[in-house]
Amino acid sequence: MMDFLSQCRAVVGDAHVLDTAAGMAPFLTDQRGRHTGKALAVLRPGTVEQVAALVRACARHRVAVVPQGGNTGLVLGSVPDGSGTQVLLSLARLNRVRQVDAVNRTMTVDAGCILQHIQEAAAAEGCLFPLSLAAEGSCTIGGNLATNAGGTAVLRYGNTRELCLGLEVVTPQGEIWSGLRGLRKDNTGYDLRDLFIGAEGTLGIITGAVLKLYPQPKASITALAALPSPAAALQLLVLMQDRCGASLTGFELMSRYCLQLVAEQFPQLPKPFAAPHAQYVLLELSSSESEQHAVGLLEQAIGAALDSGVIDDAVVATSVSQSAALWQVREHIPLAQARAGKNIKHDISLPVSRIAEFIAVTGPKLDAAFPGCQLVCFGHLGDGNLHYNVAPPTGVSNEDFLLNQDKVNRVVYDSVEAFGGSISAEHGIGALKREELARYKSPVELNMMRAIKAALDPLGIMNPGKIL
Amino acid sequence: MMDFLSQCRAVVGDAHVLDTAAGMAPFLTDQRGRHTGKALAVLRPGTVEQVAALVRACARHRVAVVPQGGNTGLVLGSVPDGSGTQVLLSLARLNRVRQVDAVNRTMTVDAGCILQHIQEAAAAEGCLFPLSLAAEGSCTIGGNLATNAGGTAVLRYGNTRELCLGLEVVTPQGEIWSGLRGLRKDNTGYDLRDLFIGAEGTLGIITGAVLKLYPQPKASITALAALPSPAAALQLLVLMQDRCGASLTGFELMSRYCLQLVAEQFPQLPKPFAAPHAQYVLLELSSSESEQHAVGLLEQAIGAALDSGVIDDAVVATSVSQSAALWQVREHIPLAQARAGKNIKHDISLPVSRIAEFIAVTGPKLDAAFPGCQLVCFGHLGDGNLHYNVAPPTGVSNEDFLLNQDKVNRVVYDSVEAFGGSISAEHGIGALKREELARYKSPVELNMMRAIKAALDPLGIMNPGKIL
Repeated sequence: MMDFLSQCRAVVGDAHVLDTAAGMAPFLTDQRGRHTGKALAVLRPGTVEQVAALVRACARHRVAVVPQGGNTGLVLGSVPDGSGTQVLLSLARLNRVRQVDAVNRTMTVDAGCILQHIQEAAAAEGCLFPLSLAAEGSCTIGGNLATNAGGTAVLRYGNTRELCLGLEVVTPQGEIWSGLRGLRKDNTGYDLRDLFIGAEGTLGIITGAVLKLYPQPKASITALAALPSPAAALQLLVLMQDRCGASLTGFELMSRYCLQLVAEQFPQLPKPFAAPHAQYVLLELSSSESEQHAVGLLEQAIGAALDSGVIDDAVVATSVSQSAALWQVREHIPLAQARAGKNIKHDISLPVSRIAEFIAVTGPKLDAAFPGCQLVCFGHLGDGNLHYNVAPPTGVSNEDFLLNQDKVNRVVYDSVEAFGGSISAEHGIGALKREELARYKSPVELNMMRAIKAALDPLGIMNPGKIL
Repeated sequence: MMDFLSQCRAVVGDAHVLDTAAGMAPFLTDQRGRHTGKALAVLRPGTVEQVAALVRACARHRVAVVPQGGNTGLVLGSVPDGSGTQVLLSLARLNRVRQVDAVNRTMTVDAGCILQHIQEAAAAEGCLFPLSLAAEGSCTIGGNLATNAGGTAVLRYGNTRELCLGLEVVTPQGEIWSGLRGLRKDNTGYDLRDLFIGAEGTLGIITGAVLKLYPQPKASITALAALPSPAAALQLLVLMQDRCGASLTGFELMSRYCLQLVAEQFPQLPKPFAAPHAQYVLLELSSSESEQHAVGLLEQAIGAALDSGVIDDAVVATSVSQSAALWQVREHIPLAQARAGKNIKHDISLPVSRIAEFIAVTGPKLDAAFPGCQLVCFGHLGDGNLHYNVAPPTGVSNEDFLLNQDKVNRVVYDSVEAFGGSISAEHGIGALKREELARYKSPVELNMMRAIKAALDPLGIMNPGKIL
């Protein structure tokens, strides 16, 4: 391996091949601190050509490569295994915004660009890059693409997949595929772009991308609605979409227990309603016209929902700053959970129309198996995406309850499968859910995935042990 | 081969294995009448299981399969070659709408459903299936998916790819992949859906799909703007997007010569302006609120464009029926072309921001090579998609001019390549553009495509000779 590492040093310089324990440590533990891997070295290329040269060296020496962006993933996709034989390839130094084209509404970026910097560069040109998620201050667009990240703007703008027009990829052979096309229409052969998006670095390394930009909305206004049930939330969704179309940019469900947790852990936050309700929906409306248009449209729609008895009560923000205060309640749910102690998390999706039934059926099953367990159920209802987390019953310690993780997962995922849902809506598979994937995917689909993996990466050096 | 055909008859019954010249004839000639292939037989399965059983028989006997929907494609993708050894597999009998879910905003359909029937089934549930194109009365959704069809609603709703959530596919091994997921978010492994979409039947046969539905807009209103240049049209596009956001649902460019052709061939159609202008843009605005809202928004935006000198003149439709009349002018361009005689057609796309420059540079190149040739240049400017057709100079017959097709293609496609565009925006590759694809795609990309084809279809029986 000395020969391999010298080749790496010849490519990127000594300073960018880290092989001491201290040098590698910041790269080897995952975001939630559940796994610390070992690596042969951490490689920090500064150009696409260096990435390609490093991968060629890896192919020659049969060294496995784990690509890493901001290392904010939640499924152990960007950390090495425990063997110490894999190299970690950090894209962090590839962090240039290469070009912004405000007329084509595109931006060409290096994979290592931090999401927030991309949002800011778009805004500086009067445009919106709509991808937005909790880790945006440290995650990179390459990681967002590799995991097809979701976030809070999917209802209107789609997942990361829908926000990308072209890619640059270093193949497992160390060649550079220059697919940086900024085209809205291009029907020339197989859709390789979408194959690399969401492949979590197992088919190649994304080094650059052409992203879609949108006009900046003039204003976004929110409301918080109180409802009797998830079924009522679905009625509200249909009503809002029919009346507001693409202006509806957010639709987040939160259960009574979620708001109770936030109130307990963050008593300083506003409490929008005097009495508790069974469910809440945070709605966001964006207008390309004006703040006044957004407020008027939202008030009319909320009025109609009240009149028809779909919702029990509502608070409508009448300004952008009031809207931000309502979003705070939603954003504090994960923080409140973390303060309250660990729980068993599920990032699931379902057909939107089946969510109420899923919630009605799955809760009692969990309660039967784990009497008194608490559900922290919230999420992007408009996308069918629930964060369906299970906390211990009163009096049971988090540590004891976590011993039930496999059994809890089985109840939840079996129910997800029965309702035609997905066991990973927006986080991906990584190493964490690999066995679950093998359990729930059909052999036909798994075999096609394996055939593609073997065809593009015959040496099996690209992020092995992830997904498949 | 008798053994093979008896196996097929055992699967679908004698009536659905056509092997007489008269029985096969309706399936063997392409839409524009440029190629008539030969087939061993035409197979007409009535169920997905029958499709799978037929493909297994094909695999056993190494018989190549050409899938066909409505046979409205423009690139010879759905007709067999001249060998007489391929079977044509028609999906026409798989034509059920399986389910409409108005809350999930999805529809599950057989691949052989005619696009217009799908639009109507969506409308019956108060929803919109936005895919719309000239052949909608006879094309099938399976063909739309296999070619990733575009059409007139891409600016707002995307290509067919963006309108599909899940697929059912019969693999080249004759297995059924049930990927009919109706999920907005699903990050569980490789994106096989998007690999089959646009693969033109070369990787498997799409037999069913889950389609995205949208709320029906309350009204769509159009305007026709007159402008001095394509560059002004780009300024207008930016202005309209900034003011109207997702309400802008159409933006079609037409040159002076296009409208002149329409006026000559269809003198009964309205002539919106007294004097001719260099360029025209047909704009469409859709509102989820009301006709009044759409008209008001459009009038304000057009007023701003006039005030800032971006456009010279405009006609705004003040009702849905006036809007339809303006669309007629745009829709009659292809018909007027056909009446005027054959020309050399190109379905190209470019970065939107580079279209004015492309038009400015490419026209003079063509004129230098073919003095006096006429450009029929129109298309979906908002998507960067031009139908850039070249007609003979006055006095040169269509037949004589068509002898120059390869040379004309070289001028146009070399220019498209220089501007980072695509030689097939929405029609696909088929057999017609296979050599052009090999010429303009990078070896890295072609090799990945070939590796995927070999991995999924090792016998090479799925629509051979198309794309690759």
